[in-house]
Amino acid sequence: MIIKRRYGFSILFREILPPLIILTGWDCVVVILFQIFHQEWMEQPALPFSLMGSALAIFLGIRNNAAYARWWEGRTLWGSVTNNCRSFGREVDSLLGGAPELARAMAAYPYILKSSLSNNEPDAVIRTLLDEDTYSFVFSCGNPANALLYKLGQSVRHLVIERNIDGAVHGTVDRILSDLANAQGGLERIRNTPLPIQYSMLPNIVTHLFCILLPLSAVQTLGWITPLGSSIIGVLFQMLDRSGRNLQEPFRDSPHALPMLTISRTIERDLLQPLGETPHPMPTPRFGRVP
Amino acid sequence: MIIKRRYGFSILFREILPPLIILTGWDCVVVILFQIFHQEWMEQPALPFSLMGSALAIFLGIRNNAAYARWWEGRTLWGSVTNNCRSFGREVDSLLGGAPELARAMAAYPYILKSSLSNNEPDAVIRTLLDEDTYSFVFSCGNPANALLYKLGQSVRHLVIERNIDGAVHGTVDRILSDLANAQGGLERIRNTPLPIQYSMLPNIVTHLFCILLPLSAVQTLGWITPLGSSIIGVLFQMLDRSGRNLQEPFRDSPHALPMLTISRTIERDLLQPLGETPHPMPTPRFGRVP
Amino acid sequence: MIIKRRYGFSILFREILPPLIILTGWDCVVVILFQIFHQEWMEQPALPFSLMGSALAIFLGIRNNAAYARWWEGRTLWGSVTNNCRSFGREVDSLLGGAPELARAMAAYPYILKSSLSNNEPDAVIRTLLDEDTYSFVFSCGNPANALLYKLGQSVRHLVIERNIDGAVHGTVDRILSDLANAQGGLERIRNTPLPIQYSMLPNIVTHLFCILLPLSAVQTLGWITPLGSSIIGVLFQMLDRSGRNLQEPFRDSPHALPMLTISRTIERDLLQPLGETPHPMPTPRFGRVP
Amino acid sequence: MIIKRRYGFSILFREILPPLIILTGWDCVVVILFQIFHQEWMEQPALPFSLMGSALAIFLGIRNNAAYARWWEGRTLWGSVTNNCRSFGREVDSLLGGAPELARAMAAYPYILKSSLSNNEPDAVIRTLLDEDTYSFVFSCGNPANALLYKLGQSVRHLVIERNIDGAVHGTVDRILSDLANAQGGLERIRNTPLPIQYSMLPNIVTHLFCILLPLSAVQTLGWITPLGSSIIGVLFQMLDRSGRNLQEPFRDSPHALPMLTISRTIERDLLQPLGETPHPMPTPRFGRVP
Amino acid sequence: MIIKRRYGFSILFREILPPLIILTGWDCVVVILFQIFHQEWMEQPALPFSLMGSALAIFLGIRNNAAYARWWEGRTLWGSVTNNCRSFGREVDSLLGGAPELARAMAAYPYILKSSLSNNEPDAVIRTLLDEDTYSFVFSCGNPANALLYKLGQSVRHLVIERNIDGAVHGTVDRILSDLANAQGGLERIRNTPLPIQYSMLPNIVTHLFCILLPLSAVQTLGWITPLGSSIIGVLFQMLDRSGRNLQEPFRDSPHALPMLTISRTIERDLLQPLGETPHPMPTPRFGRVP
Repeated sequence: MIIKRRYGFSILFREILPPLIILTGWDCVVVILFQIFHQEWMEQPALPFSLMGSALAIFLGIRNNAAYARWWEGRTLWGSVTNNCRSFGREVDSLLGGAPELARAMAAYPYILKSSLSNNEPDAVIRTLLDEDTYSFVFSCGNPANALLYKLGQSVRHLVIERNIDGAVHGTVDRILSDLANAQGGLERIRNTPLPIQYSMLPNIVTHLFCILLPLSAVQTLGWITPLGSSIIGVLFQMLDRSGRNLQEPFRDSPHALPMLTISRTIERDLLQPLGETPHPMPTPRFGRVP
Repeated sequence: MIIKRRYGFSILFREILPPLIILTGWDCVVVILFQIFHQEWMEQPALPFSLMGSALAIFLGIRNNAAYARWWEGRTLWGSVTNNCRSFGREVDSLLGGAPELARAMAAYPYILKSSLSNNEPDAVIRTLLDEDTYSFVFSCGNPANALLYKLGQSVRHLVIERNIDGAVHGTVDRILSDLANAQGGLERIRNTPLPIQYSMLPNIVTHLFCILLPLSAVQTLGWITPLGSSIIGVLFQMLDRSGRNLQEPFRDSPHALPMLTISRTIERDLLQPLGETPHPMPTPRFGRVP
Repeated sequence: MIIKRRYGFSILFREILPPLIILTGWDCVVVILFQIFHQEWMEQPALPFSLMGSALAIFLGIRNNAAYARWWEGRTLWGSVTNNCRSFGREVDSLLGGAPELARAMAAYPYILKSSLSNNEPDAVIRTLLDEDTYSFVFSCGNPANALLYKLGQSVRHLVIERNIDGAVHGTVDRILSDLANAQGGLERIRNTPLPIQYSMLPNIVTHLFCILLPLSAVQTLGWITPLGSSIIGVLFQMLDRSGRNLQEPFRDSPHALPMLTISRTIERDLLQPLGETPHPMPTPRFGRVP
Repeated sequence: MIIKRRYGFSILFREILPPLIILTGWDCVVVILFQIFHQEWMEQPALPFSLMGSALAIFLGIRNNAAYARWWEGRTLWGSVTNNCRSFGREVDSLLGGAPELARAMAAYPYILKSSLSNNEPDAVIRTLLDEDTYSFVFSCGNPANALLYKLGQSVRHLVIERNIDGAVHGTVDRILSDLANAQGGLERIRNTPLPIQYSMLPNIVTHLFCILLPLSAVQTLGWITPLGSSIIGVLFQMLDRSGRNLQEPFRDSPHALPMLTISRTIERDLLQPLGETPHPMPTPRFGRVP
Repeated sequence: MIIKRRYGFSILFREILPPLIILTGWDCVVVILFQIFHQEWMEQPALPFSLMGSALAIFLGIRNNAAYARWWEGRTLWGSVTNNCRSFGREVDSLLGGAPELARAMAAYPYILKSSLSNNEPDAVIRTLLDEDTYSFVFSCGNPANALLYKLGQSVRHLVIERNIDGAVHGTVDRILSDLANAQGGLERIRNTPLPIQYSMLPNIVTHLFCILLPLSAVQTLGWITPLGSSIIGVLFQMLDRSGRNLQEPFRDSPHALPMLTISRTIERDLLQPLGETPHPMPTPRFGRVP
């Protein structure tokens, strides 16, 4: 995720560059053909063009709203993971009477979730937080994050029996694990369910079509400055389309992805610091990007 | 549900083909009639046409937003079924002290729900997960999924009495069943309550009317290239209308339906793997479609 | 609620007919006056008309969105009634150890709620589900549905004392009654709080004004075919206005009302079937309408 | 809150009258100046005017949506107060074994909340529902409604100790008080946080500017009938602006305010009737307004 | 946050002044160049300009809606902090039997949260509310607000053991701490996750571009009064852009920031008054601004 305006501008500009060059090239071709070999059939009237603009506006409006909502829901669910991991750490101490190995195992949870959401290899840090048994059990299952919650549930049970803890307290701690399961399920839902194909493909196709037809419609009135006017408009619509596409997959590796590593480190810090342990240092932003 | 862009394009194209052919045919008829037997009454001014476009935009905007919201709510509720089934599996182990037959019965729940939502025969897999008694009781009721939750409630009760488990723990486990009842009720609500007839029929009718009148309005200025311009616009609005209609019934068998079989298999896997049992394999996507 | 497209079309058409006839009549008057006694002052320019269209679009957009949200919230709250009645039935059996008379009394709850929401006489079916005492207590109160919840709370208390049930279990069952009170309160809120008068009256008035002025603006360019063009546009806007008005009162007796009888019957069935009792049969849809 | 259409119309008309008169006056001045002392600089082209209309539409759209959302959230939170007060009444009886003085004290809660939200003197009815001690403690605090919840919490504690009630039951009853605190906090949030000044002031200013410039733009084409056309449009936009402003402060004394007295009476009735006591009668609507 | 209209107007006007001066200057340059050295290439047609306006409207619409939603979500989460702090105060008394030092420590929580959200030095008031040990532990951690919740959890545990309090009651009190952790996590999420760079930068850039091109498009028809018309429109769009930017960072020090000091004082008052202690006085609004 980009957090610095300065870098953000240059990243956006680099994204815009290729379509800008292609668009300007096409605009020049049109304007030269029109001005030199004046072709009457190129004189396009404005009506169908503005209707096309309306259809495009509805498509882009719905798609970009939905894409932003997915991105923000993804961020909110990661926030819920953060909150519940912290509450688990607090409750292990205040309700169960303290169990550092449980808090440490929970610190591994966001790392496991992160790697399964982004289809990456599990982070090396996980091995330092889980004991050998838990590690091999968790990664033998199809869904390691869910398996860790299962394992944590069993460990809580052992503690409850060992220390003769009240059932209501046990239920309260287990509620946190259920809330984590809900947040995790929500994140997997966003990853597994792409935006309907109509909303992810059609705005893209219609935007390209629109940019191709744009100079044909503008060349009559704009004449030789068509490439300037037409490419400004074209780039604007390309950027609208692109901002929707960037947000619709919030876990894919891109400059606009959610900062899952930073969130995981925050959770680790908030779980380990009260135990007096030293967590891994926060990642440093590079070129305005938080990983 | 379509998850591959490549197949998605060909599926969308095949859906678009019939209206495209009809529209182009009609456009050609209009342009020929106009250019050859020039009929003055065919010269339609732009005003009523752009007003019609506004009305259509409001209709399509509200309808498509509502249809997308239904589809995404359906997906979210299936996500809630997933989360609560997993949590039930964890709690059976950590709160009730383990009961494989309960986890196995819960694995049948999504299959039963799936078949009642899509009005299909119950999946063969259900018989392998439920014992004979439960199977016949469940399918003797008008709402088998609800009957299974009822039965699971009774089994939990027997366990609680047998193993002398605390009331608060019992309440915590029962909360998961209530959450499942809530998700199930939400899914049935979406299936039983179609979008109001005004929003499901009128956009469709108005879009057709719009496409019929389109060439009449465009032929004056576009002349012989009317069929090209008019059919591009017409197909765009047809696709807008169709993307709304596709999403408004998320459980009906279509390329855009929710992947209920895949979700059921995921739940089965996450419930059976921690018990050391082998779940059914995940379905393979065919032509970019996840069933 | 209309669930069949075929009937839906004819119901919509019958609703549209009166305004269509009046509009066409007025359009004919305008066109005849204009073409025969050509009155110059009737030539209205397009600008104020398109501004009026913008204002109307904002009004209709906000109102129709709000009306649809009310309708869907009403449906969702009835869904919540369904879910919690079912969960109450399950918990009476699994947490309290079974009490058929409580499940039967709960089956009367949706019928009581339905009649108070639609200001009808209490359904005859209620008397068959409640015992004499409860019936007379409930209907002596100003809010019978709330009184039934109160009574059910007392019956649960007696059961808890009699069978020496744990306090946490008692709390879990009582939570369901609180959730029902929340859903009921939400339904009463929608019934008692109409859409603000500005949003329910102004779109209606502005739509009529718009339809009256429409032929004046169109007659110059459309000439003799004004009645056709103008009445198509007019009917579209009338239908937009009407679809909002139809949804804004989801409990009033109309073809678009929520199917409260069907929902009540479903709840009764899901509560009585597991007890081995026979519920009342589901109502049959007539002319595509579910009551 | 206005609930009768008939009165609603006359209230709206009276609100519209002053701007209508001023607008028409200004329109007449413009048309006379233009037609008699034809000033060329008054001929305003349409482009900047339609751009201004777009900016105004965005402002009014966002503001009116936000204002309606505030109003409906306020109503929903009052609904939540209603539900939780009722549930408290039920639980005092079914979970704590009955305590009429607690139900009576709770019946005072909505009256206290109402007067603090609308900055009025506390209602006389409060003194009849609270005992002397509670009354003086509650009104000695900066936030009387919060103080009453605090006091009720203490009374519940005494009951729990006296009657030796289970901790889980105590927790369930206390949950209702927390839910009331949440609803109360939400209502105070709406009262204390006005809509951002940009959204509450700018639409108002821009609407006035728009109405002043409107006849200048219309007079060229509309001529002598400018006052008619221009004031219809102007009043429409004034009403759009006003409907947003009316809803944005849902607790201020106005015909559009939430019916807080009626809601308080309903709560009182539903709490006192099951105890066999007679609540205060419901207020009668006057001129279609529910207080 | 500005709560007085009068001051609000002058603050808004001062914000608008710089762009207004620059815009008017540029408009004058354009009109002079055009009228005196009539340059034909400056005659810009309206089409590309109105397309640019559509793109800008979509950008501003989505961005301003998202910014307002962030601001209101921030306010709602602070509301949730208020409610849960109050409920904690009540429960310390009614569920745990009273512990003034816990209520006092909780009164420090909003101050700690406020300073970490706005990156300020911790408020001096915190030292007066926390004992020395808690103070040094809390500020030795990376996230002091979270550390305070952890510490409070431990203190509750000691009380529970000391006074032999039921596990269910302990769970109920701990639930409040979890709800506070959820609200705190939500606030940190809003602070740490800026609006996607596309939505925070592009509307700004496009608005500037739009304002630069505006007089070129208007000068043909407006002539010498271009600066008036063009700068009114320009300022409107600048204000739309600015109102979005103002709201998107609700914790940054600005006239539009959330009144976090006032909220913290309110919480302190509602926690300390029932204990008979005197809280710090509420801050006085200066120039219509609540800090």
